[in-house]
Amino acid sequence: MLVVMDHNATREEIDAVVIAIEEKGYTARPIPGGERVSIGILNNEGPVDASHFLGLPGVKDAIPVTRPYKLVSREFKPEDTVIQVGGVTIGKDKLTIVAGPCAIESESQALTIANHVKQSGAQLFRGGAFKPRTSPYSFQGLGKEGLIILARVREVTGMPVVTEVMDLETFDLVEEYADMIQIGARNMQNFSLLRRAGHSRKPILLKRGMAATIDEWLMAAEYILESGNSQVILCERGVRTFVHHSRNTLDLSAVPVVRKESHLPIIIDPSHAAGRRDQVIPLSRAAVAVDAHGLMVEVHHQPEKAMSDGAQSLYPDQFDLLCRQVLAIFNHVKEG
Amino acid sequence: MLVVMDHNATREEIDAVVIAIEEKGYTARPIPGGERVSIGILNNEGPVDASHFLGLPGVKDAIPVTRPYKLVSREFKPEDTVIQVGGVTIGKDKLTIVAGPCAIESESQALTIANHVKQSGAQLFRGGAFKPRTSPYSFQGLGKEGLIILARVREVTGMPVVTEVMDLETFDLVEEYADMIQIGARNMQNFSLLRRAGHSRKPILLKRGMAATIDEWLMAAEYILESGNSQVILCERGVRTFVHHSRNTLDLSAVPVVRKESHLPIIIDPSHAAGRRDQVIPLSRAAVAVDAHGLMVEVHHQPEKAMSDGAQSLYPDQFDLLCRQVLAIFNHVKEG
Amino acid sequence: MLVVMDHNATREEIDAVVIAIEEKGYTARPIPGGERVSIGILNNEGPVDASHFLGLPGVKDAIPVTRPYKLVSREFKPEDTVIQVGGVTIGKDKLTIVAGPCAIESESQALTIANHVKQSGAQLFRGGAFKPRTSPYSFQGLGKEGLIILARVREVTGMPVVTEVMDLETFDLVEEYADMIQIGARNMQNFSLLRRAGHSRKPILLKRGMAATIDEWLMAAEYILESGNSQVILCERGVRTFVHHSRNTLDLSAVPVVRKESHLPIIIDPSHAAGRRDQVIPLSRAAVAVDAHGLMVEVHHQPEKAMSDGAQSLYPDQFDLLCRQVLAIFNHVKEG
Amino acid sequence: MLVVMDHNATREEIDAVVIAIEEKGYTARPIPGGERVSIGILNNEGPVDASHFLGLPGVKDAIPVTRPYKLVSREFKPEDTVIQVGGVTIGKDKLTIVAGPCAIESESQALTIANHVKQSGAQLFRGGAFKPRTSPYSFQGLGKEGLIILARVREVTGMPVVTEVMDLETFDLVEEYADMIQIGARNMQNFSLLRRAGHSRKPILLKRGMAATIDEWLMAAEYILESGNSQVILCERGVRTFVHHSRNTLDLSAVPVVRKESHLPIIIDPSHAAGRRDQVIPLSRAAVAVDAHGLMVEVHHQPEKAMSDGAQSLYPDQFDLLCRQVLAIFNHVKEG
Repeated sequence: MLVVMDHNATREEIDAVVIAIEEKGYTARPIPGGERVSIGILNNEGPVDASHFLGLPGVKDAIPVTRPYKLVSREFKPEDTVIQVGGVTIGKDKLTIVAGPCAIESESQALTIANHVKQSGAQLFRGGAFKPRTSPYSFQGLGKEGLIILARVREVTGMPVVTEVMDLETFDLVEEYADMIQIGARNMQNFSLLRRAGHSRKPILLKRGMAATIDEWLMAAEYILESGNSQVILCERGVRTFVHHSRNTLDLSAVPVVRKESHLPIIIDPSHAAGRRDQVIPLSRAAVAVDAHGLMVEVHHQPEKAMSDGAQSLYPDQFDLLCRQVLAIFNHVKEG
Repeated sequence: MLVVMDHNATREEIDAVVIAIEEKGYTARPIPGGERVSIGILNNEGPVDASHFLGLPGVKDAIPVTRPYKLVSREFKPEDTVIQVGGVTIGKDKLTIVAGPCAIESESQALTIANHVKQSGAQLFRGGAFKPRTSPYSFQGLGKEGLIILARVREVTGMPVVTEVMDLETFDLVEEYADMIQIGARNMQNFSLLRRAGHSRKPILLKRGMAATIDEWLMAAEYILESGNSQVILCERGVRTFVHHSRNTLDLSAVPVVRKESHLPIIIDPSHAAGRRDQVIPLSRAAVAVDAHGLMVEVHHQPEKAMSDGAQSLYPDQFDLLCRQVLAIFNHVKEG
Repeated sequence: MLVVMDHNATREEIDAVVIAIEEKGYTARPIPGGERVSIGILNNEGPVDASHFLGLPGVKDAIPVTRPYKLVSREFKPEDTVIQVGGVTIGKDKLTIVAGPCAIESESQALTIANHVKQSGAQLFRGGAFKPRTSPYSFQGLGKEGLIILARVREVTGMPVVTEVMDLETFDLVEEYADMIQIGARNMQNFSLLRRAGHSRKPILLKRGMAATIDEWLMAAEYILESGNSQVILCERGVRTFVHHSRNTLDLSAVPVVRKESHLPIIIDPSHAAGRRDQVIPLSRAAVAVDAHGLMVEVHHQPEKAMSDGAQSLYPDQFDLLCRQVLAIFNHVKEG
Repeated sequence: MLVVMDHNATREEIDAVVIAIEEKGYTARPIPGGERVSIGILNNEGPVDASHFLGLPGVKDAIPVTRPYKLVSREFKPEDTVIQVGGVTIGKDKLTIVAGPCAIESESQALTIANHVKQSGAQLFRGGAFKPRTSPYSFQGLGKEGLIILARVREVTGMPVVTEVMDLETFDLVEEYADMIQIGARNMQNFSLLRRAGHSRKPILLKRGMAATIDEWLMAAEYILESGNSQVILCERGVRTFVHHSRNTLDLSAVPVVRKESHLPIIIDPSHAAGRRDQVIPLSRAAVAVDAHGLMVEVHHQPEKAMSDGAQSLYPDQFDLLCRQVLAIFNHVKEG
């Protein structure tokens, strides 16, 4: 942290900041400049809270210098984390494709789609049993019945299954059925849920919040690691911007940034980013080209009858095309 | 909902959309235009899910025409909702000021601040016992001990108390101690928590999410009303934008919009919007001038020693000035 | 500027950065920390370009410490700038109200509106002669004829007039007729236009760009001052965000920030921020309460027939109410 | 346009809207719904201005149904536009790579870089002679001298050259030297400049504004086409969002949207989007995978000594790697 003083800060004000820093147990190092004095804060373990100093007389700004996260950082653990979900590997040099409907609607719907996506190349099956919906009047998912169907899909197809958990009350239940547990964008800073996920032995798929910085996202993952579970996969799904030709704006620069800052794998959800079917294939190609560790794509055999998010679900044929296109790109990125 | 067809959509594609609409039990009304056909959807109860139609062949767009919310809307209930918190009234023609520290740190800290803010004109006392923090390494609040201190503040000062609830597990406990229960910005779409709040008999203070539209915010309130609790106060606290001279951008146009669309009261939190002390007083004046039903302001007698958010906490003197300034404006807005 | 090194930067990489800094004529001051080294850059006149250092091996970040602007800054000129437009004063303790139609449509339209707004309390008249329009098919303004009508309004009512300039070619013409020259949001970083404005002897009203930071806005003003014209009034008119219940999001915290950082006056345009008539009066009250130096408001006697922006134009009665309400608040803010 | 009435709008208010619509020469078609009446506007040529109706009594909303642009739309011209710049083709099935330094600094610098990028596969050379800079104190480009150097580069290497024009005054000069004329993001809505570009016979590279919607961007292109020049190449370069790990957020979904809505080619500038060298290669791969018509990349042989934007400039070796990677992807996208 660097505390920047006003250009006309008095000697007394500067001294008071130095004392405030040292009272916290840190070392203060004043740096006289041409126009103003700055004061470096050293010997802190973990991040320094700017608000301790920002309000002091004569202080103009307080600038963080080090990153706030620790366990998730590549500085802490230089080698890539590789995660096993059922028999499927996520991370490092793999490209893992997760696919399935937004919501589980029936056993026949789930099995139909699962067979399609498996044949095209998906390794994991996704489907919502507990659905977070903006409106209390929308379909909220089949709940436990949906989980039972997911287990049936795994049994029939051999694909491990991913589904979302919404609260502490249903965590045990979801954990029992799922091979990987998803925490949705709206819950990215539901810290109680993150802590509970940290006590799970199942891998956690942590979606980025709609307006989360990468620092906040990695700090959310830090909660999970700090509570004991180091199997976290990050999932970028678009951020909210002024743009309205897609539902969200897919932030693909998150991939190189996360790969540099953290050892955790990162996959992309083009379906929720786009919100419209016709952008999903191009964005999937881009996601693989930018070197994400995988994709999570919504597929439905009858999207016009889907109980949620039909507009962004691919037809099985389209998903098949998607898989062929992204695998060709993946091979080239890896060879390049 | 208006389904807009491509300008070269075929007769068959238009008919297929009409059938898809009628299969859902709605009425379809095609509107031939100069360049293209649009199809109105009538006789729907509640909102129509655009995704059912957006993906159909020949469909260019699907435009929502009616608002998705019902119980919170002024069309449903024309008169203002007035809410009692302890003996304090929020809503309609009142200006209610909530003040206190970000976090409860000790009984002496809480009582010192409570006495100050009461004397200046605050009617409700706020203070966090369970704190949602971006970092797992930051101070997380005193928990139950904090709640006991809040009860003590109420006993000593007579002020009703407001505090945040973070999860289902601690809801009963918070409900027992608090006069009004806050749901924070990060939990605005924690639907399980909203449902639980809907079963409470205590008023709920619902903060707007960092990137929430007003529709989404009102839909979150709809969850609470739909579950049985109609005592909801909305709290605008700034939204995340590209701007970085304040922590968030206070969206004051939310006040006239909410007042027009809904019967629920709306208050402003200038402290979390600004994130810096020196913007809090001007933004508070603006909030009252724009005709909010109240303010929630962070105050600390020693902000430089505060365990969280010290940089945005006012000194007691500043809060005193704030109260004098906003009351003068309030009287004029009401007379005007 | 503080150059932050990777935690495993080598001695050689650190030395190379020191040399690169010194080659630019600055002083480098390495600051060894617990985890990593940072290097302060001292003795720079004017801002340092981060890009010189960001790309060097071992460099993690380069953090600006000082503000980039000079002539517009309060550090450079501590006392408020006060500007005369015709006989009207803008700045310091004054509240100045500018009002009129979006576009000049005819002499009768302009005079009708001018008489209304003058009677209600406006001191300056605004009206567009050259209109920047998103579509080439929209009404583009009356051009020179509009300027002649503005001159007629000034003659008849005594009010100084404000109008927008769009390019270098018409600058001389606009300058001849206008008492204050507006540079619109879309041209905030049209640097050739800013330079030309710097050679004018007329005051310049500089609108904030739709996505401009305050630093960028003040740097745009710096272009004008640096070219010789120190009569600049800043005008906040909302920034583009994800919000869509208003056309833009009015950023009122810009007022305390600009007042702190700069000596230039700042006024608010609630009409373009809102884009809808029913938010204009509440936002105007808020703007005065936050202590802006003035307002610029669109008014039309027949907004439903206006040739542009009718939806945000107030009826004369509404403007009259606005003036009464904001003056009451202004008096209280100044007394408080 | 669909005008949506309040649910309690009176018969008279509805009639008044119908009359207002017909006064404009359009056809009004009221659509009675369950809850409220909407009124379709038919037989308009070109876009309808919502503001004519938004302010009328009883009107709740006015929703545009058709796109505002015409000449740039694929509905108007279904086949892809292909543009020749010098002997180089842009559009349809080509991938065109533009590369060079941010600013021309000297003949030796320009030629050194040009030879590097040509050898790696660039077909066009870019370099700024007139530079729009946030600060008046930054290097503003060599001006005419820069243009002469560009001509020399063309002569020596055979590559056509691209450079930015900033104002009307220097347009003729730039037009004389450049093979393709760039209009920068800050000037995207400088309508006088767009009109002048419309009278040029040189192709125009139109960058997307920092906060421009695709509609606004296409309307800016519409100005150029409407003035007579149909050789416009669009360039996405990132939009401003809350994100700060890259300078801007690259909006790759713009590519499928522009390809669907318009016949004009679209290329990507990853350098200005990222603002940091280490994101440029991954984003370039993504841009090609998403099916852009080309890339524009900043390259410098000594970026740490560059006079502007050094941090985002690739070293020649990196650019060489980039070309190899994107060509492999391009071939697969085209084969797939």
